[in-house]
Amino acid sequence: MTKKAGGLAGIVAGETAISSAGGGHDLDYFGYSIYDLAENCIFEEIAYLLLYGKLPNKTQLSGYIELLRSKRDLPQTLKDVLERIPANAHPMDVMRTGCSFMGNIEPESAENTAIDVANRLIATFPAILVYWWHYAQNGKRIECQTSAERTGAHFLTMLHQKERSTLNARAMDVSLVLYAEHEFNASTFTARVITSTLSDIHSAITGAIGALRGPLHGGANEAAMQLIQNFSSPEETKEGIKTMLANKDLIMGFGHRVYSEADPRNHVIKEWSRKLCAEGGKEVLFDISEVIEKMMWDEKKLFPNLDFYSASSYHMMGIPTPMFTPIFVMSRVTGWVAHILEQRANNKLIRPSAHYTGPATQKFIPLEDRP
Amino acid sequence: MTKKAGGLAGIVAGETAISSAGGGHDLDYFGYSIYDLAENCIFEEIAYLLLYGKLPNKTQLSGYIELLRSKRDLPQTLKDVLERIPANAHPMDVMRTGCSFMGNIEPESAENTAIDVANRLIATFPAILVYWWHYAQNGKRIECQTSAERTGAHFLTMLHQKERSTLNARAMDVSLVLYAEHEFNASTFTARVITSTLSDIHSAITGAIGALRGPLHGGANEAAMQLIQNFSSPEETKEGIKTMLANKDLIMGFGHRVYSEADPRNHVIKEWSRKLCAEGGKEVLFDISEVIEKMMWDEKKLFPNLDFYSASSYHMMGIPTPMFTPIFVMSRVTGWVAHILEQRANNKLIRPSAHYTGPATQKFIPLEDRP
Repeated sequence: MTKKAGGLAGIVAGETAISSAGGGHDLDYFGYSIYDLAENCIFEEIAYLLLYGKLPNKTQLSGYIELLRSKRDLPQTLKDVLERIPANAHPMDVMRTGCSFMGNIEPESAENTAIDVANRLIATFPAILVYWWHYAQNGKRIECQTSAERTGAHFLTMLHQKERSTLNARAMDVSLVLYAEHEFNASTFTARVITSTLSDIHSAITGAIGALRGPLHGGANEAAMQLIQNFSSPEETKEGIKTMLANKDLIMGFGHRVYSEADPRNHVIKEWSRKLCAEGGKEVLFDISEVIEKMMWDEKKLFPNLDFYSASSYHMMGIPTPMFTPIFVMSRVTGWVAHILEQRANNKLIRPSAHYTGPATQKFIPLEDRP
Repeated sequence: MTKKAGGLAGIVAGETAISSAGGGHDLDYFGYSIYDLAENCIFEEIAYLLLYGKLPNKTQLSGYIELLRSKRDLPQTLKDVLERIPANAHPMDVMRTGCSFMGNIEPESAENTAIDVANRLIATFPAILVYWWHYAQNGKRIECQTSAERTGAHFLTMLHQKERSTLNARAMDVSLVLYAEHEFNASTFTARVITSTLSDIHSAITGAIGALRGPLHGGANEAAMQLIQNFSSPEETKEGIKTMLANKDLIMGFGHRVYSEADPRNHVIKEWSRKLCAEGGKEVLFDISEVIEKMMWDEKKLFPNLDFYSASSYHMMGIPTPMFTPIFVMSRVTGWVAHILEQRANNKLIRPSAHYTGPATQKFIPLEDRP
């Protein structure tokens, strides 16, 4: 037993066959390189891989896409709940409540298995966010079905109430592939701890959403956008970052607990950011991002993680910044589910020990005698 | 690094000054023996101790009781949500959604601090459960304010729509004291993991509720009641348990990860179960429980934990079995909050490693070529 296992860093909390990250591996899902998957796959192939353990063939994939499409509409009582969440609520809190409420009206059971629930949540998460958003912002009750085949395009179409460019749709697809799974990160670990008590899948995913919400985890992409938006030119960026570094301000979207030299996902998303900024005629946004990247490496030896160039990518798709972390949920739910199923298959209650640092004993003083 | 840290058993995941459990300590909250606290304190003293770090004097306690009483009523939009949760929902799922929705309408902020949120949740959890229950069961919209001073009596009065006996009210008080805090149990650890991403307090408590729901954690008291209710006499119990042990059926409410010989809380709750069964003229329920206790010790060397005699105690207070774990929430929320505040005071992201057991690498096959 070690006295200072700060944040369980480097402590092996269990086994997984789902993904390997860091070390010599870069990042693989079930042994497939993230580069191959991001280059060649749509998100639904990855969801299928994570839920069923293998890549689908053409027939399986088209069947799976149809399955998800058939599950997209929201129950009326859920819409009633979403309409009662105020416009200034945190969108991650909307996702959390939406997921929890789905557990009230469509709980896991022998007839509605964990996989059924998982597919239902993958199918409905985009609408949970966007239905609330349009209603809270403009009192508009949107349709939760679109003609879009893919989850990413479905989300963008509902958000903008019209189709986006092919480049936008494919970029969203790639982003969902990149965010889908990442070993024992804090939200996935949360899902596994909750699952280890033999609780239900909605509880595990609701808890994971709560963990992902934090700025040290999923919230980093929003923080990165807020940073980038402070600057209007590369020169201004240089000055601004110099000041922030001197003030020891926290700059989000850099470094990672499991990677020491680079985040492999950054190589992919950075090129998409470049393309999206070019398509939208906003090359300056990309240039500003590159200045920050270079300074963070030169000054701090910190590399951008997936969150950093995701920020400008999402921005170029016309996505409001507070939606960035909820998009992470739409993708990562697939990884969470894989880990929930894996935890159940070989379960042991996750219950660590604590090192006690409080008073040895205190003499009890009755209420009447307390000073 | 160890390959098999199953369930993090014995792994120190951090430091705490809030409670010490097991070892030579039995159970102390901030160094105060659980025996002294259960004998002498009302639940509100314990809530105060856990939130503010010291036992209140008379003035502080009466001020605190008034504060909680002033925060009991539910917002109308929350009632609207609760009315949309069906009667067959799991009451823990109601607590989870109620907590999450409170985070939508009364989020943590500079003006609504974590302590404010904590007190609001302590004050409203009984009504969140009971308002839903009466509406779902009978379409009745109950008042969420009562004249009861204490949380336990407030809950019992709302549930039964009339006052219960003094013995009932005090027993509920003691039960809430016993369940309030227990070091790095799975739900508290969940709250700490979520908090470690710098997420908000509603997210942490919502996740903790999800973890507590599982039968390997809070759900055990419900499972114990279901077991006890199978039997109508000590003789029948002996036969039934003998069969269950022969079949290797799981018998809930026994043993504990951190205690090796006895759960100190059991000594207290067992005597309350005895008194409550006597008051209600149901001595047989207590006798049946004792038979199970004796057989589990003789055959398996397992001792009853807090959950086991809590089952018969709650039953004698007229509480429906599905409410047992939600009562645990009403109490344990105080311990969760103490740990959330402690985690924040010295935060490091809780992010363990995993031992990878999956395929080394798989060659990617394009969709068209997959078999």
